[in-house]
Amino acid sequence: LRRGHHSVGIIGAPFSKGQPRDGVERGPDLIRAAGLVEKLKGQGCIVKDYGNLIFEEVPNDEPIGRVKRPRTVGRANEQLASAVERVKNDGHTCVMLGGDHSLAIGSIQGHASSRNELSVVWVDAHADINTPLTSPTGNIHGQPMSYLIHELHSKIPVMPNFSWIKPCIAAKDIVYIGLRDVDPEEHYILKRLGIKVFSMTEVDRLGIAKVMEQTCDHIFSKVKKPIHLSYDIDALDPSITPATGTPVVGGLSYREGIYITEYICQTGLLSAVDMVEVNPKRGKTEEEIKSTVNTAVDLLLGCFGRVREGSHSPDYKMPEP
Amino acid sequence: LRRGHHSVGIIGAPFSKGQPRDGVERGPDLIRAAGLVEKLKGQGCIVKDYGNLIFEEVPNDEPIGRVKRPRTVGRANEQLASAVERVKNDGHTCVMLGGDHSLAIGSIQGHASSRNELSVVWVDAHADINTPLTSPTGNIHGQPMSYLIHELHSKIPVMPNFSWIKPCIAAKDIVYIGLRDVDPEEHYILKRLGIKVFSMTEVDRLGIAKVMEQTCDHIFSKVKKPIHLSYDIDALDPSITPATGTPVVGGLSYREGIYITEYICQTGLLSAVDMVEVNPKRGKTEEEIKSTVNTAVDLLLGCFGRVREGSHSPDYKMPEP
Amino acid sequence: LRRGHHSVGIIGAPFSKGQPRDGVERGPDLIRAAGLVEKLKGQGCIVKDYGNLIFEEVPNDEPIGRVKRPRTVGRANEQLASAVERVKNDGHTCVMLGGDHSLAIGSIQGHASSRNELSVVWVDAHADINTPLTSPTGNIHGQPMSYLIHELHSKIPVMPNFSWIKPCIAAKDIVYIGLRDVDPEEHYILKRLGIKVFSMTEVDRLGIAKVMEQTCDHIFSKVKKPIHLSYDIDALDPSITPATGTPVVGGLSYREGIYITEYICQTGLLSAVDMVEVNPKRGKTEEEIKSTVNTAVDLLLGCFGRVREGSHSPDYKMPEP
Ligand SMILES: [Mn+2]
Ligand SMILES: [Mn+2]
Ligand SMILES: [Mn+2]
Ligand SMILES: [Mn+2]
Ligand SMILES: [Mn+2]
Ligand SMILES: [Mn+2]
Repeated sequence: LRRGHHSVGIIGAPFSKGQPRDGVERGPDLIRAAGLVEKLKGQGCIVKDYGNLIFEEVPNDEPIGRVKRPRTVGRANEQLASAVERVKNDGHTCVMLGGDHSLAIGSIQGHASSRNELSVVWVDAHADINTPLTSPTGNIHGQPMSYLIHELHSKIPVMPNFSWIKPCIAAKDIVYIGLRDVDPEEHYILKRLGIKVFSMTEVDRLGIAKVMEQTCDHIFSKVKKPIHLSYDIDALDPSITPATGTPVVGGLSYREGIYITEYICQTGLLSAVDMVEVNPKRGKTEEEIKSTVNTAVDLLLGCFGRVREGSHSPDYKMPEP
Repeated sequence: LRRGHHSVGIIGAPFSKGQPRDGVERGPDLIRAAGLVEKLKGQGCIVKDYGNLIFEEVPNDEPIGRVKRPRTVGRANEQLASAVERVKNDGHTCVMLGGDHSLAIGSIQGHASSRNELSVVWVDAHADINTPLTSPTGNIHGQPMSYLIHELHSKIPVMPNFSWIKPCIAAKDIVYIGLRDVDPEEHYILKRLGIKVFSMTEVDRLGIAKVMEQTCDHIFSKVKKPIHLSYDIDALDPSITPATGTPVVGGLSYREGIYITEYICQTGLLSAVDMVEVNPKRGKTEEEIKSTVNTAVDLLLGCFGRVREGSHSPDYKMPEP
Repeated sequence: LRRGHHSVGIIGAPFSKGQPRDGVERGPDLIRAAGLVEKLKGQGCIVKDYGNLIFEEVPNDEPIGRVKRPRTVGRANEQLASAVERVKNDGHTCVMLGGDHSLAIGSIQGHASSRNELSVVWVDAHADINTPLTSPTGNIHGQPMSYLIHELHSKIPVMPNFSWIKPCIAAKDIVYIGLRDVDPEEHYILKRLGIKVFSMTEVDRLGIAKVMEQTCDHIFSKVKKPIHLSYDIDALDPSITPATGTPVVGGLSYREGIYITEYICQTGLLSAVDMVEVNPKRGKTEEEIKSTVNTAVDLLLGCFGRVREGSHSPDYKMPEP
């Protein structure tokens, strides 16, 4: 029986300044309004909702090189890191509801502060591993990984409000799933650091079941570290989750997306989850928004014990006539 | 050459009282209007259409416990059972066009009356195995299996118009495919009875080809019994078959749905098929209804010899100039 | 690094007389307008666009038996064959943008003229292998293969403007992928000639990765011949590429379609590609047309080095602070 008695702490992070599109800050409230907390409780979880963080825009936040809004993004992530650390210290599996994917900086940093070492499973159409110097757009939601990886430390320039960040992830502890839109500079980094990547080509070749087996073989090859699952909703195909800022055709199916969460849940090592880039303003219809939000909820339910075969409590007694 | 000379007997069962939604009683006529009979003949089948059964509503059909319309559902299924038995005794493979899935009671019972023992392959998003006492909704279309399984006999209360039913299926002779919305009570029953289930998780893990191999390994492990295929159209994904009463995201693809029928057909043991829960009133557009109905037809064609690689008659001579 | 330095020669073939539906002659210009040339250059290809061929309708082109517009189709393909031969002699991989699939006659014939022997990988919902005498419709886009295969030579009647064609492909050098709508006469031919076919049933059974492995095992079993990839956009599912003349449900996914091109590209033996049957007039919305055209472009990009994991140039140096 995998009916969970997971203890879940939820942080809302209504933040959109890691990228240029309005609307993604409404993710946390929409995901909650779709019933996340009630549904988690309904499947046996203990849930504490820590509410939404309140972020301030730092004034005069001029670009540094190409990097846009560095002070605002740095500051917001510092707040988020503290919040995540607190949730972890309270003993919960942490759920961070974004907001854009720049928030992974604070979420992973805060998570790492409370643990020795982490594995990161990054599910995304994009690698989000540009450094401030390689980024073609300057949007920090395309860069979070670069700040966090030990091996990239020397490539990261000093930036205001970023000095609190300490690289905390080793390249060998990262697995990417779902990539299909990778900048050349990012591809160089991924290869150079020997990071394990299951692009959509590998998902097609191996199937999602083997991808998950090999993902866990990879991250568990030495010690079993706690898992940080960073889930960008754009990993899924835009036919399922269209309401997102940078959709890319040829994504994961709903079923593959769910399979990933079921599998990670069953490792028993899931310690924090990000669910990011749900942007209702990018949905063309109410239907598109609902499909995106409901899928985000379903993915989170899969992280915390929901399985498609169903489940029952161990003390169930069947009624007789 | 798998071009069939199947002999097919069709029964229409325009019945909707096993659940609360109007419209599902129009299934048989819509499936016929989409050309089922002509297409079956076109692929070499001998077809006898027995027409539609005429069901009467039993007056004063008050709920018994939570179970809704027990007398009406019991009576309709008794009629259907006779009709199916007759079709089987006439030597046909029986096609029952529903109507809602409560009709499986009569279809399987009638089929079993004409044969020694059956295997049941149940393709559905739902297990439909609640007993009258566990059912959360009281809708009998969520309960048919419970009346038919030997091992559940002691759990079934006496109900008016249900006394003609004799449990006729052993738990070990059942395979479920496509489950993804299973009540806790149903999950308990499935586990307790050790019933073979390929939920969508297993379909994702194994792929549909291995699922079908293992399905047949399971049901053929001892004797090769005739197969009763009970196909709920909601097994398929709502993007393909939206016009149904209880759609559930994350279903079988059109191709997986068809693969199941091609595979079952090739066993040579298909003895009866139910095609149920097509409900035109649940389609939001004409397109949605057409897609649902046409898929139902294609699934039935797959049951009776249609294969995607094509086929030709053994006496074909190629024209020369 | 599979970043290509492919040299690509593009021929537009705005031709629609191999079938009855207007609009398919706009394929070449639409595919170009979607950025094909720029995108190929962007991924490192050298591209020469040879422009569009200009076809004339042959007057008084009465049917011969059931075959419609034989003189017009024969003449157009003769022009195309010369053009393709020239592109090949100029040293490029040839891309032929259709137009309808009757153009494969000229494309493959012209390709064969410049090479010793070819393999043909035909990706299509249809086999397009009717002879003029078996064709149920008389549309030549359902017949091109029959004119090209040595083993069918004796079955092909003499037709005006077809005398320039010399059968140039052996049945053992052909692989079909994606079939799901095959005429009985075609099925007879495929079986009689022992042609390797991966219908959608085999794609479902094996998965696209094994299909591609076995495709290459088959065509490379003896010598490694240059590959002619003839890609009918209707191979893909109509949910992705609806703007085509003869859509058939249950097709390849976008990802499977792309996987085929990535895999063929990596053989290093791709020598010519047809991209045919994009018909904007068959799209019901602008969206449908765009999805069809963009998919055609993506498939071509996959043929010439684009991979979903990304790529970088070997001399890239990473910027440091
Ligand atoms: Mn992304
Ligand atoms: Mn991302
Ligand atoms: Mn169902
Ligand atoms: Mn059902
Ligand atoms: Mn075709
Ligand atoms: Mn074709």
